[in-house]
Formats: sequence, structure tokens, C-alpha cells
Amino acid sequence: MIAHSFTGEIFGPAQRLHGATYVVDATFRRPELDDDGLVVDIALAGGKLREVLDEMNYRNLDDEPAFAGKNTTTEFLAREIHERLARALRAGELGEGARGVSSICVTLNESHVAWGSYEGSP
Amino acid sequence: MIAHSFTGEIFGPAQRLHGATYVVDATFRRPELDDDGLVVDIALAGGKLREVLDEMNYRNLDDEPAFAGKNTTTEFLAREIHERLARALRAGELGEGARGVSSICVTLNESHVAWGSYEGSP
Amino acid sequence: MIAHSFTGEIFGPAQRLHGATYVVDATFRRPELDDDGLVVDIALAGGKLREVLDEMNYRNLDDEPAFAGKNTTTEFLAREIHERLARALRAGELGEGARGVSSICVTLNESHVAWGSYEGSP
Amino acid sequence: MIAHSFTGEIFGPAQRLHGATYVVDATFRRPELDDDGLVVDIALAGGKLREVLDEMNYRNLDDEPAFAGKNTTTEFLAREIHERLARALRAGELGEGARGVSSICVTLNESHVAWGSYEGSP
Amino acid sequence: MIAHSFTGEIFGPAQRLHGATYVVDATFRRPELDDDGLVVDIALAGGKLREVLDEMNYRNLDDEPAFAGKNTTTEFLAREIHERLARALRAGELGEGARGVSSICVTLNESHVAWGSYEGSP
Amino acid sequence: MIAHSFTGEIFGPAQRLHGATYVVDATFRRPELDDDGLVVDIALAGGKLREVLDEMNYRNLDDEPAFAGKNTTTEFLAREIHERLARALRAGELGEGARGVSSICVTLNESHVAWGSYEGSP
Repeated sequence: MIAHSFTGEIFGPAQRLHGATYVVDATFRRPELDDDGLVVDIALAGGKLREVLDEMNYRNLDDEPAFAGKNTTTEFLAREIHERLARALRAGELGEGARGVSSICVTLNESHVAWGSYEGSP
Repeated sequence: MIAHSFTGEIFGPAQRLHGATYVVDATFRRPELDDDGLVVDIALAGGKLREVLDEMNYRNLDDEPAFAGKNTTTEFLAREIHERLARALRAGELGEGARGVSSICVTLNESHVAWGSYEGSP
Repeated sequence: MIAHSFTGEIFGPAQRLHGATYVVDATFRRPELDDDGLVVDIALAGGKLREVLDEMNYRNLDDEPAFAGKNTTTEFLAREIHERLARALRAGELGEGARGVSSICVTLNESHVAWGSYEGSP
Repeated sequence: MIAHSFTGEIFGPAQRLHGATYVVDATFRRPELDDDGLVVDIALAGGKLREVLDEMNYRNLDDEPAFAGKNTTTEFLAREIHERLARALRAGELGEGARGVSSICVTLNESHVAWGSYEGSP
Repeated sequence: MIAHSFTGEIFGPAQRLHGATYVVDATFRRPELDDDGLVVDIALAGGKLREVLDEMNYRNLDDEPAFAGKNTTTEFLAREIHERLARALRAGELGEGARGVSSICVTLNESHVAWGSYEGSP
Repeated sequence: MIAHSFTGEIFGPAQRLHGATYVVDATFRRPELDDDGLVVDIALAGGKLREVLDEMNYRNLDDEPAFAGKNTTTEFLAREIHERLARALRAGELGEGARGVSSICVTLNESHVAWGSYEGSP
């Protein structure tokens, strides 16, 4: 549940300070399941996603040093969250089994009619 | 898609400037349908709801004079939108047939797990 | 998945022959559960609802004798389906336990943003 | 909200004139975001989609010259809408930034359990 | 995510040991908001609901002493969860402001087409 | 609506006998539509999916010989259902037109926040 504003005429009224609820999904893909019959440990993956989102939640993103000079569009945030999850996966924080994941897709649902995703290898 | 902040310790991290997407539904009830077999003219009602929401959309509610000194909680906003719709109905802006409406319920869906409503006579 | 058209200027472009998918929910209420711990036998109630909908499905409602001279609005259809379910309940087709039902609410969801209901005693 | 009928025994009761509500989503994909940090200008894309849908909405598709001799199945309509959006994109109607879009996927949700999509390059 | 079985011919194949995911919503109503502009402190209410559900989650309800001799139907569980939330509210666990709540409605969504609720004063 | 339990410490409380509702979607893809303008005959495909699910529904999967020694995770079940649908398609049970299908994706939605899929050629 973040506040932010955008720079650029193309954004129209969204140049004003406004806000959004993002309901965020992460999808993990792999060619073969791990030894436990899993794509990923959903408790570890869900916990890490929660942790990544808590770093942004209830904030004005215009004031976050990490996003200085950026338009924090839905698409931009999807990639940012993807990178933080991918980094955690590579560091083993999602478990050893998760090393077989070939792709992570992060989707930000911003309303009942608008969403944005970023998909890439971890 | 609004920004706002809350005053009071009970709000925890929501005391910071943050934001929300509200998907807003309005439900109209009446004992008998009007002569056209309608509860309300959905084009007029939907247009008026759109108009009321545009008065708040893409804004920081902390800066709106109408809400000065108020916590613009979901519950508070539901009542505010109810009152603006009810006023329009009483003024005939939803059509003459709408005068038979006995109740309006306004619901703000703020995420996949949280919502707030206000219901009352128009 | 019905076709129909409406009569009356208030309906604008919906005066033309068009169509709709209605996803139909029926809600049964009662003060106390029956002896099996149920509001209603969901298999019987769901089967009857299916049967009532099949009487209308894949049809042009403008050609149905039962609806001659009527605008088959969402609101109108909700009441019609309510009456057919209520009649079945009173005739014992939803089981003896269902006689304790005090109210049936029928909702027609016609899109992601529009719906209509009729609620009344059976 | 269209009316139509299908030709061919395989369609069973859908050979009768009937109708459907289609809730239509368009998804745009690209390898890199444009200079504003966007996949596509959502206001332009949403407006164009609205315009394409208005050409079909509240109509009996059996009477539309553009669809003469065709079964206007969900799959067929998804491709048709894709082509109209793709043509608009190529003509610059979705903005210059949209020229980097590599794929458009159009999905028609026809009920809570059935949908069809067409995906291809613009 | 519970396992259970039902006793009684009316339950047909559900007499076998099977299971269900229940997505549980609690709705609180009151005539006037509290001094903070709230119906209820959503963090306290959500935390308590989570706690009540954890007492049942990942279990075979047939083995729970609290439910011995009962059919743990959706309707029955809705009332059970209502009572546990109501008891917490009366004990002040949802905050002093929550004492103004006049009604709690608990809904168990068991699939995309079936749900059950219990509503009553706390 | 199945009951099951998992073997392995990684599953935490899900090692206990519990249960789940799975709402199951099957998506069929192909490069070109068949002669009727269809991806697949939705009545045949839906009927076959229903039949495959009925083989598992209202059961304790721990007792099914077909799954002996397996963790019936969401991912595992998605592949199992995929294989049964693919076998039916290859046997002509989804109609001759279905032979042009190049991919089937089976998704098990197990709650409002968790799902698993398997996608492959038939």
C-alpha cells in the first residue's frame, strides 16, 4: 500500500502524489520437480516475498533512496521485486531445492483491471 | 488510487504516508422495481459514481480541504461516497425512477482481503 | 448465455438485440440449521438451480412466451429465478429439511462490474 | 454483451441464437521497458481496446458484415480483437513507445469457468 | 486446509474422508464508527481470526475432541468461528473500540461456487 | 475436495492429515484453430476433465493405490491430471479436431493465494 508520483507528461493525473494497493504474486517454473515433489518450498518463498514487500509497504516511494530518479511504475516494481527474490534464491534463502528453478515471474495486480509482470531467470 | 496517512498510534505503520487502490461498488436496493423494470438506471448511477470517485482519484487526501482533520479510513470514505451518491439521487441526477431506492450500500475493496462498506437510506 | 433486447429509450444501445453471460448464485438463509447441520442440501439446491437455468440458457429471451411483453432485465430475471426456486422448495423438491429456509437471495452476475439480486422468503 | 449463433452440430444448443458477456483483457509484452519505464501507455491502450470493443458491443454478431460466414467463437473473436489492436499499434495510435512491444495477448473471459486467448506479435 | 468426513446418507460421497480449503472472511458491523473512525482494529481482528483458524488448520477434524459427534459442515464451522471471535471481542481482545460492534458475519468460501456464513451479535 | 498428508520435514504441519479444495483449470493451445473455429470442443474437454477429477474427488489420496509412496503435492497432481487429459486427447476422446492441440496446461488453484501448474505437449 504505497504512495508515489510519476514524472513525465505521459502520466497525466498520475503526476500528482497518489497511491496504490499492489497484490503481488510470484510464480516459479522449472523443468523437473525437486526430490520432495516441489517447485519451491512455498513457506520459504512466501516468507521471502512478504519480507521483500515489507521493505516497500506503507511508504511513499518518492522518498526511498533506492528509487531516486526513477518512475516507480508497476512494471518497474515488478522487476525490482523479481531481482530481490532472485538474489535470495541464488543465495540459498529459498532452500537448496530451489536451485532448480529456471524462471520467476512477479505480477503486481494494481486493481481489478490493471496489472504488470516481469519474468526472467533467477 | 489515493495517497494518505493516518493519525493515532492504533494505525501503526499506516501513520506513514502510503496509498491504496480502492475498487468501489455501489449497491442500490428497493422493495419494487420502477416502471422500466429497473432498480436504478445503471448508466446514470455508474456515471455519477465515476464522477464522485474522480473528485478523489490520483490525489493525496491529506491535502484535501474536505477531509481536513479526519482519518480518511476505508470506513470513513465509504460513508463520504454514500453521502455524495445519496445527494445526487435526491437531486434527481439518477433519474426520476431512482426515487424509489430505499437503500444505497457503498463498498471499498482495498485489497484481496480487506474491504469496508457503508449502507443507509439515500 | 442468453440473447435479448430491451424496450424503452432509457436502455440506449441495449435496445438492440445483444446478449449476456449470467453467473447465477443462490443464497439460502435460516435461523437454525436442520438436523443434519445444513442450511440446505447443496446437491439438491444446485441441481434445481441448474435445471431452472437450463430452461433459459442458450436462448433468445425475446422469443420466450413466458417473458412476452417484459423487459428481461437482470433484476427481473433474478426475481423470476427466485420464484422458480421458491416454488420447488415449497413443493419439497429441495428436501424436507429445506422447509426451514426463511429467505432465498438470487444474484445474477452479468460482468465483473454489474450484478443484480432479488431476495425474499420462499 | 453480444448475441450470436453458431453453425455446426458440434455446437449443440449454442446453434440457437444466444448471447455472452465477454470481459476482455489485453496483455502487452516486450523485452525492455520504454524510456518512461512503461510497457505501453495504459491510457492509450485501454482507450483503444474500449474503442475496438464498442464496435462489437450491444450487437447481434450474426448481422455484422465483417463476420459473415464465420462462427464468432471466443477464439475467433480473440484473434479479431488482437488484429485490430495490432493494426492500431503499428499505426502509432498507442504512442511511439509502443513500437517496442513484441507480443499482444487478448483474452476473452466469457464466464467464471471459460475463456479464450490469442497471442501473437503486433 | 482440513480433512473431515460426514455422517448421514444425505452427504453422499462426502461421507468418505475428504478435505477442503476454506478461505475465511469476517465482517464486522456497527451503527457508528469508533473514535478513531474505525469499525474494528483490522490488525487485531485479522490476527485473532488467524489464531482461531490455526487451531483448526492442517488437521483432520474427525479427530478433534471439540467436534466429536458433530458434522463439521461449512455452516457449522462458520458458527464455531463466529463464537470464538465473539468471545475474544467480549473479552476485549479486539480492543476497547470493538465493543461497539453490533454484528459479526463469518463466511467460509470452500470453492469458487460454494460458501457458507453465520451472522449474529458478538 | 481431497484429504492427504505429506512425508518429509520440509512440509511442516502439512505432514498431518489435512485437506484441500482444488479448483482445476485446463488450458489448451494450438497454432491454428480447427475447421470449426475452435481450439478444442469445450463440452468434450470439460466433460473429460470432470471425469478425471471425479476419480480423485471426495477421497483420501493417501489410500489411493495409484499414488502409493508419492507426495501428492499440488505440482504432482497437476502433472497427473495433465497426463490423464493428454492420454484421452491422443485416444481421440476430445474429438478429431483436438489432434491439432500442441500444449495442455493444467492449473490447480488451492486457495486464493496458492496454485500450481503443469504444462506440456499432449
